Amino acid sequence: MNEKGLLIVLSGPSGVGKGTVRQAVFSRPDAKFEYSISITTRKPREGEKDGVDYFFKTREEFEQLIKDDKLLEYAEYVGNYYGTPVDYVQETLNAGKDVFLEIEVQGAKQVREKFPDGLFIFLMPPSLGELQNRIVGRGTESEDLISNRMEAARKEIELMSMYDYIVENDDVELAVDRINAIVLAEHHRSERCVSKYIKLLEVK
Amino acid sequence: MNEKGLLIVLSGPSGVGKGTVRQAVFSRPDAKFEYSISITTRKPREGEKDGVDYFFKTREEFEQLIKDDKLLEYAEYVGNYYGTPVDYVQETLNAGKDVFLEIEVQGAKQVREKFPDGLFIFLMPPSLGELQNRIVGRGTESEDLISNRMEAARKEIELMSMYDYIVENDDVELAVDRINAIVLAEHHRSERCVSKYIKLLEVK
Repeated sequence: MNEKGLLIVLSGPSGVGKGTVRQAVFSRPDAKFEYSISITTRKPREGEKDGVDYFFKTREEFEQLIKDDKLLEYAEYVGNYYGTPVDYVQETLNAGKDVFLEIEVQGAKQVREKFPDGLFIFLMPPSLGELQNRIVGRGTESEDLISNRMEAARKEIELMSMYDYIVENDDVELAVDRINAIVLAEHHRSERCVSKYIKLLEVK
Repeated sequence: MNEKGLLIVLSGPSGVGKGTVRQAVFSRPDAKFEYSISITTRKPREGEKDGVDYFFKTREEFEQLIKDDKLLEYAEYVGNYYGTPVDYVQETLNAGKDVFLEIEVQGAKQVREKFPDGLFIFLMPPSLGELQNRIVGRGTESEDLISNRMEAARKEIELMSMYDYIVENDDVELAVDRINAIVLAEHHRSERCVSKYIKLLEVK
């Protein structure tokens, strides 16, 4: 076939549960995506592993990657850098595999500029109150940090109409069902597959 | 919610298996569509029932409906009229339910003009040879009619890039899975649901 893979970008406000949904996406036995692990300078949370959840780097290391143009996108968010290694994404797409990115909203904006035909999914909290509960419930943040995060979340939610799809995270497994349906559907969008079908008709 | 329903249009070349796929869509226990039964002047095939598969009408009756502007679309195809009653479709969409149309390619073009934000799915034969097998295998058509149908099919397939989605009918159940994924995904497209989510955030 030699079709290029699909770049799937899952984003949304901090605290909405992007990481949990991403893990649930990949724990399905029929998951067909390649996951692009992000690079970050923030400290690992309990249970997070280097090279699995993130590549954890120092600020100096991260800034060198920026200089070397080795990042598809990066953002500084609440005092920490987050970024996506570009080479891995390009190679995987060229090999015809779908790449799944889970990134912050600022980063998603940069990826949109470089990959306008990527598939951008905004993960939505059921309500702002619920989002606050989750951020507070995490128990790792100070009060000031919480109110900063809530303000940032409000701004990020205003960006949701820039995305192709909006998925409510009212239930993790339902959110995964929706994401999988979106990816399957996108593979059948005519602008993505019409040339393949015309070829099929000619060859057989 | 008071959201309007989605108009889903399944079309494709004659003989591709639209009717079989439509039946399989509706035989799923979780099918949530309202089916809009078409009106036709062609003779019922064996097993087809009036008011179930089609409303079977005379040419005179059909032409009266055209005059009264009671058809969302209609087409004359290989000597017979096919059409969709407009009132049922409008009322059902306004009630927030998705309507599923299975229609000929000419008719789909007319619906596109009236419902540009409908969801248009082109059902694709795995190959033109396969399509011919199916048309011949039906055993109800003369040789001339078969070659007419094949020529028409070739022309119709050229129209597929006007559709939103292309679904291969290599396997009926797989085709239904794809259609269901497409419908679920479309309900999450941001242009369809962003206003609903903004409201949710404000209210709670």
